Amino acid sequence: MRIVLLAASAALIASSAAQAADLPATARSLSEKALSDSTAWDLTESLTTEVGARPQGSAGMERARDWGVAKLKALGFENVHVETFETESWLRGAESAEVVSPYPQKLQILGLGRSAPTPAGGIEAEIALFDSLDAMLAQPEGALKGKIVVVTQKMRRTQDISGYASGVQARSAGAEAAKRGAVAYLVRSISTDDTRLPHGGGGAMAGIPMAALSPPDAELLERMVVRGKPVKIKLSMASTFRAKAPAYNVVGEIKGREKPDEVIVIGGHLDSWDAGTGAIDDASGIGITTAAAKLIAGLPERPRRTIRVVMWGAEEQGGSGAAYAEAHKDEVGKIIVAGESDLGAGQIFAARLPAGSHDHPAMKAFEAAMAPLKTIVSGAPAEEGGADVEGLKRLGTPVVELQQDASRYFDLHHSADDTLDKVDPKELAQNVAVWTAFVYAVADSDIDFRTTAAAQAQ
Amino acid sequence: MRIVLLAASAALIASSAAQAADLPATARSLSEKALSDSTAWDLTESLTTEVGARPQGSAGMERARDWGVAKLKALGFENVHVETFETESWLRGAESAEVVSPYPQKLQILGLGRSAPTPAGGIEAEIALFDSLDAMLAQPEGALKGKIVVVTQKMRRTQDISGYASGVQARSAGAEAAKRGAVAYLVRSISTDDTRLPHGGGGAMAGIPMAALSPPDAELLERMVVRGKPVKIKLSMASTFRAKAPAYNVVGEIKGREKPDEVIVIGGHLDSWDAGTGAIDDASGIGITTAAAKLIAGLPERPRRTIRVVMWGAEEQGGSGAAYAEAHKDEVGKIIVAGESDLGAGQIFAARLPAGSHDHPAMKAFEAAMAPLKTIVSGAPAEEGGADVEGLKRLGTPVVELQQDASRYFDLHHSADDTLDKVDPKELAQNVAVWTAFVYAVADSDIDFRTTAAAQAQ
Repeated sequence: MRIVLLAASAALIASSAAQAADLPATARSLSEKALSDSTAWDLTESLTTEVGARPQGSAGMERARDWGVAKLKALGFENVHVETFETESWLRGAESAEVVSPYPQKLQILGLGRSAPTPAGGIEAEIALFDSLDAMLAQPEGALKGKIVVVTQKMRRTQDISGYASGVQARSAGAEAAKRGAVAYLVRSISTDDTRLPHGGGGAMAGIPMAALSPPDAELLERMVVRGKPVKIKLSMASTFRAKAPAYNVVGEIKGREKPDEVIVIGGHLDSWDAGTGAIDDASGIGITTAAAKLIAGLPERPRRTIRVVMWGAEEQGGSGAAYAEAHKDEVGKIIVAGESDLGAGQIFAARLPAGSHDHPAMKAFEAAMAPLKTIVSGAPAEEGGADVEGLKRLGTPVVELQQDASRYFDLHHSADDTLDKVDPKELAQNVAVWTAFVYAVADSDIDFRTTAAAQAQ
Repeated sequence: MRIVLLAASAALIASSAAQAADLPATARSLSEKALSDSTAWDLTESLTTEVGARPQGSAGMERARDWGVAKLKALGFENVHVETFETESWLRGAESAEVVSPYPQKLQILGLGRSAPTPAGGIEAEIALFDSLDAMLAQPEGALKGKIVVVTQKMRRTQDISGYASGVQARSAGAEAAKRGAVAYLVRSISTDDTRLPHGGGGAMAGIPMAALSPPDAELLERMVVRGKPVKIKLSMASTFRAKAPAYNVVGEIKGREKPDEVIVIGGHLDSWDAGTGAIDDASGIGITTAAAKLIAGLPERPRRTIRVVMWGAEEQGGSGAAYAEAHKDEVGKIIVAGESDLGAGQIFAARLPAGSHDHPAMKAFEAAMAPLKTIVSGAPAEEGGADVEGLKRLGTPVVELQQDASRYFDLHHSADDTLDKVDPKELAQNVAVWTAFVYAVADSDIDFRTTAAAQAQ
């Protein structure tokens, strides 16, 4: 038995050695190839040009679903299919806002998801303006009765998502304003630019009309308010809301050669907000992850494990990640790792790997491919894998976090300015290179992130 | 007689010497004071906040007129009055555009001045797209029958106005498109930015609907067209046009102490397009020139000549300069020099003086004040004094051209992005410093630009 065991161990060592020798070279050559591959750009260009805006529940989303199926099939993916579910759909109607007194001026607004419409004739009311969310929250209940509450807090520009994370609460504070008596809620766009384009996004259900103001409009109201006279605004907003509307996760696979039931789940989200064409949010994420899988599929031999690309269908309005986890809960033990690309097309500056995996040969192979890409393997473990893999993560799936430079992302995010010309093809390709190296290293090895995490935890 | 003549000459020399000694020091100290004076900013802030958009013929323009009168009076100007005239007024109504096939998407447009409205139900037609104006002009008459003609030529970014001057013809080519059979005309914004905000402006009367596309929308149409299928657009545009509507030039003076009938005419234009709040076009020009006059009025002794500030009322739609020249044609011989500040709020990098005036002591005094302001006195003479002094120039009035850095101007010009936050208070103050030094040097000397020009011409 001992001899047998030794032999088995020797075989294991030989196998690991072979794997270690192969993996770094292949990861490196794949990521080099990715830098000059146009698949991600072509997909991003195609989705933004041929489909454009595609909010959940719209005709655009149905075209996007068909686009996803057609593209995955054309690229040679297997098991291409649509997983249908139901989730919320808020669709914008006509919107306008203006100061009616004392200084009549038009305002640029964009209604927030889940906003109530105004009555047909609009709402006209005096504003109560706060330059921070905290100042508004410090008001007692009922203190803002009949007012259009305006919060003009500014967002910080940061390389990572921290500026957004600390600013976005203001977008969801409509219910807090309503609780204090507000008849409507306006918030300075959660954005870092200075254009007259407001940045929308989802708000919390509050039963009142809610909209984002462009930064110059928020500052205009601030200047009006300091002059001392009451500022009155007229707001007209239409929208339709369905608590349950058909939604679609579009899926394709590159089947593994040895362990096809062991799966790496990657993707971006197919839906977008409606003001722009959803280029950086998130056609680029769709392009990056689909291109990475396609590049790996082009190897002479398929990797051991299956690579599954998911184009999640309702990230913005919520529900696609939960639906995916619910549909795949029985498979979760076989999902090796999951990750979503959903912070634009800026370069990946750091990779946060699943806890404890850093010293595994597969991750060393990945790291060896990163130097030319200027991506650091972070000392910190992955915390967030993206909104659409949050459901899987809760069920125990390890996640990876490939951190994109978001310095410019919030100049564009959720605004009409989210268009293809904002995507830099070279930065996009760098993303593909990093994803390709990571996904390949996991798919063609036997790394088990649950084991590495458990080993570290001990 | 000879003795008498010598005495007179000696007196003249003494007078010139005294003037030469005074002028440089005062010009320099005034321009230094201008750098920390907030008048220009306060005016720009006030006009954009309290009035906002003010297209010729609108209620906003009437508020702007009243604002101008009130501000000039409050600042201590004399002879404050309104000169009423009539000119064109084109006012925007609701506008929308969308690709209906093969890739349905909304487009961001802004109707051009003098555009015809569409019929109530809109126009739906196939597009004929040209990536240069020349390519469209190369089409024979009738060749574009029934088409919505699209010209997507790009504008160059330049420090001076040359990029705009060579690009703006495309905005006025609607009549050329109509001549070739077009049912509507769309042009890529004459702008240098990449936002989704179209840049409007005046078009030539063509009898068809005409609008500017945002740069990303122009590029979107280019990408659709290369795919080969006919691209069909639906365009809906409303507007009102009056060939004659009341218009207003608002005037105030700082009366000269010795020769009040000799006048320096400076100003900006009070009207604006309607998408933005007219901050750089041209609240800043109003602020700069009014502040310069006000600073000079603060001297212990008034300058010899009168400084007149004119807030021209219809630069964008045209007519205020012609009306001003017509109303003042009998006074033209007494107008020493005229100049308009109308290229934003970027720093003045060069001063082009009236021909042949460079060596006059007054202009030497001006030049001596320029070094700390990083403004070069150009070797080239002034050619353009601004659209609103063109009429005076044609009647023989010398003009001055204080050239502003326009590198960023066409990112903002005629778009919703023309808002106060785009004005840099320090750059604005540098403008005031240059104008103050120039206007003071002319107002407190006896320089006669007609004589210097004639001397040079000999």
